[in-house]
Order: sequence, then C-alpha cells, then structure tokens
Amino acid sequence: MRVLGVDPGLTRCGVGVVDGTAAGLQLVDVSVVRTPSEQDLALRLVTVADHVEAALDRFRPDRVAIERMFTQQNLGTVMGTAHAAGVVALAAARRGIPVAWHTPSEVKAAVSGNGSADKAQVTAMVTRLLRLAVAPRPADAADALALAICHLWRSPLQARIRAHTAVTSPGSHALTELQQAARLRARRTQARLDEARRDQIRQTAARRAALGGGAPEQPRWSS
Amino acid sequence: MRVLGVDPGLTRCGVGVVDGTAAGLQLVDVSVVRTPSEQDLALRLVTVADHVEAALDRFRPDRVAIERMFTQQNLGTVMGTAHAAGVVALAAARRGIPVAWHTPSEVKAAVSGNGSADKAQVTAMVTRLLRLAVAPRPADAADALALAICHLWRSPLQARIRAHTAVTSPGSHALTELQQAARLRARRTQARLDEARRDQIRQTAARRAALGGGAPEQPRWSS
Repeated sequence: MRVLGVDPGLTRCGVGVVDGTAAGLQLVDVSVVRTPSEQDLALRLVTVADHVEAALDRFRPDRVAIERMFTQQNLGTVMGTAHAAGVVALAAARRGIPVAWHTPSEVKAAVSGNGSADKAQVTAMVTRLLRLAVAPRPADAADALALAICHLWRSPLQARIRAHTAVTSPGSHALTELQQAARLRARRTQARLDEARRDQIRQTAARRAALGGGAPEQPRWSS
Repeated sequence: MRVLGVDPGLTRCGVGVVDGTAAGLQLVDVSVVRTPSEQDLALRLVTVADHVEAALDRFRPDRVAIERMFTQQNLGTVMGTAHAAGVVALAAARRGIPVAWHTPSEVKAAVSGNGSADKAQVTAMVTRLLRLAVAPRPADAADALALAICHLWRSPLQARIRAHTAVTSPGSHALTELQQAARLRARRTQARLDEARRDQIRQTAARRAALGGGAPEQPRWSS
C-alpha cells in the first residue's frame, strides 16, 4: 500500500509518500510547499492545492493521511491550516482516494512509541525507519512522512478495533437487536453511498481523461 | 458589482448571490447545500465544492465573500467549517475571482447597524433590503445573502480606510521615509505577484476551455 501523508499548513505544507510492503517501509518522495504569509489567503491555497494535486497525480497513492488538529493554539494559524487541510482532502476525494485523519499524538506514538515525543525524536525515528542517509528537513517533511508511516501501521489495527467495537461497545448494550440491526443497515447504506460517490468521481475523472481532459460538466445544481 | 456570499459549513452551507448597482440591491440566487454528518468528511467537502463551483460558473460573480471565523466554539465544528471555507476560497481563486473575508459581527453591523444582532434580525433586514416577499430560510441562506450585502456595502469603505491607514497608521510614524518606501514597494510587488498569479490561473482556465476542457497540465513540481 502507498500512503501520501500531508502535514497541512500555509507557511509550510509537508507532503511525504511512503510504500508499505511485506519487505518493510520505503520512501517514495518527500517535499515541502511554502507560501508567503503576506500573500492573499485564497492564492496561498491555490499554491498548496497545485502542489498536492501534482503529487497525487504523480505518485497515485492508495490512501491520503492528513493531520487532524485539536489544539487550541493561535486560532489564526489553526484556521489557515484547516483551510489547507480542506483543499487537500478535496483533492484526494475527487481522485477517489480515501482520506484518513490522525492526531499528532497518534502519529508520534506510532513512529516513536511515545505520544508526546518531540520533533527531534520524530525526525530521528522517521530517518531510521525509512533507512535514510540524512534526516528529512524541515520538520514538516519529517512530519508528513511520519503521518504516512502512522497510517500504514495503524490502519489494519483501526479496522480490527472498529470491527470489535461494533459488537461490544458499551453503547450498543443499550440498544435492542432491532435497533442494532437498523444502525448496521444505516452504516452499510452510507458506506455504499460513499463508495458509489467515489465510483462516480472516478468515472468522471476517467471520462474527462478519455475526452482529452475535463470539459466542465453540466452544473449539478442541488439546493 | 455581483457578489457571491458563502456561509461555510458541512451540515449546511449557504450560498447567496446579490447584485449591487446604482439602483440598489438585487437578489440573483440563494441556495443551501447540505451533507449528512455521518458521511466521510472528504466526500462532504466534494459535495460542498461541487455546489459552490456550479454557482460560480453559473452566476460568474465579481467577488466572493466568505465568513471569517474567530469564535472559540466547538473545535470539531469549527474545523469542518474551516475545511469548507478553504475549498470555497480555492474554487474562487482558481477562477480568478478575488475573495474577501468578513467576520459575523461585521456582517451583522453592515445589514442591521448592530454588530450583535440576532439571526431573526439579520433575516428580517436581508428580507427588507432585497425587497423579498418571503424571508430566506434556513438562517444559512439569509446569512449568505447578508455576507454578500456586507461586502457590497463595506468594500468601498474598506478601500478608503486602507488607503488612509497606509499614510497615517501609528506604526508608520516609527518608520523612516526609506522604510516606508520599501514597505510600499514590497506591498506593490506582492500585489503584482498576486495579480500575475490570478492571470496565470485565468489563462490556464481559458486554455483548458479552448482545448475542450481541462487536460491535466504537467505537474509543476516545486519542493
């Protein structure tokens, strides 16, 4: 499986691509896109989106992993970062690539065994795990690779936890069998809808490619 | 001038289009796009982006006005809203349409004269200002229209304030004339860069349209 990890941001946005195979982890590519803080916000988002879309088209990952933000830090920065994360998720979804979100502590725990590891530790572990001759710089590059590694290692575990939780979570004890069945059906329906939507996106992309590129479709107007 | 206002969100995203002419304000269109909360976040962003892009292509506004968030409310909701705002800003910038951001209190003050007006007051004023027979529902629709009206009314004022501030702001008294000149040059250079970038985006869009639609360009790889 190939994962493209994104440490979203406007000042610096890290993009790391890692292959996970039976033989282990393999670095495919890593890059950082930067935009000047004095530039118009919307134009900064275009630069980030252009860069990430080029990486998606070039490396064709199976999954995209994006950092999920929880911190109550400077709200201005958080907003810019969240805008950037939004355009990255959109770019992936429009290519039919599933998006996963991991918190910084999940990422740190996955690569270093310590959910509160510092940047130097994360960089050192990423360098070791990918058997790199030099450490990836800046930290955003290492963080993007750590996100990809985190997703490669955690996703089978998460799937197992979800499967287990569906049967034994405390909340479900309070539900009747009928309610549980209804909830399961609803989830399956949503999953089918999501999959159909992804198919639609993929088919549209394929049609555009076949037509020599994306003539704008008729606007699908839903209000 | 035609302004498309967006009250960003994932559960409900309001999109309102208003013309401002010498004769006054004129409603062009208003719509609300909804996505189910249980759906995959990235797919929800696709639905929002599809809707807004269709509106941009259909109504071809001169400006896009988006609500700027400052509140320390539920961070989960704020993040989803910020993701949505990001994809809206990206869609506008890729079409060469300048994006403005207004806070809720700016919007409320602009349409009702009161920066802490409640939703009912904002809806009532929007209904009156646009001479509508019925109030726009839900509140997100009225908020999107209020954003567009706010931008139509505030933008000449903001331009005047900026021009005034550049000459007389307290900070600039501390600068030498040479520093002020350098700062002004830097601002002009950035403005030219932004404009060149918008031109590039417009030309790319025009080329794609001329070629029968957007064949993906060669990735512009900048790390």
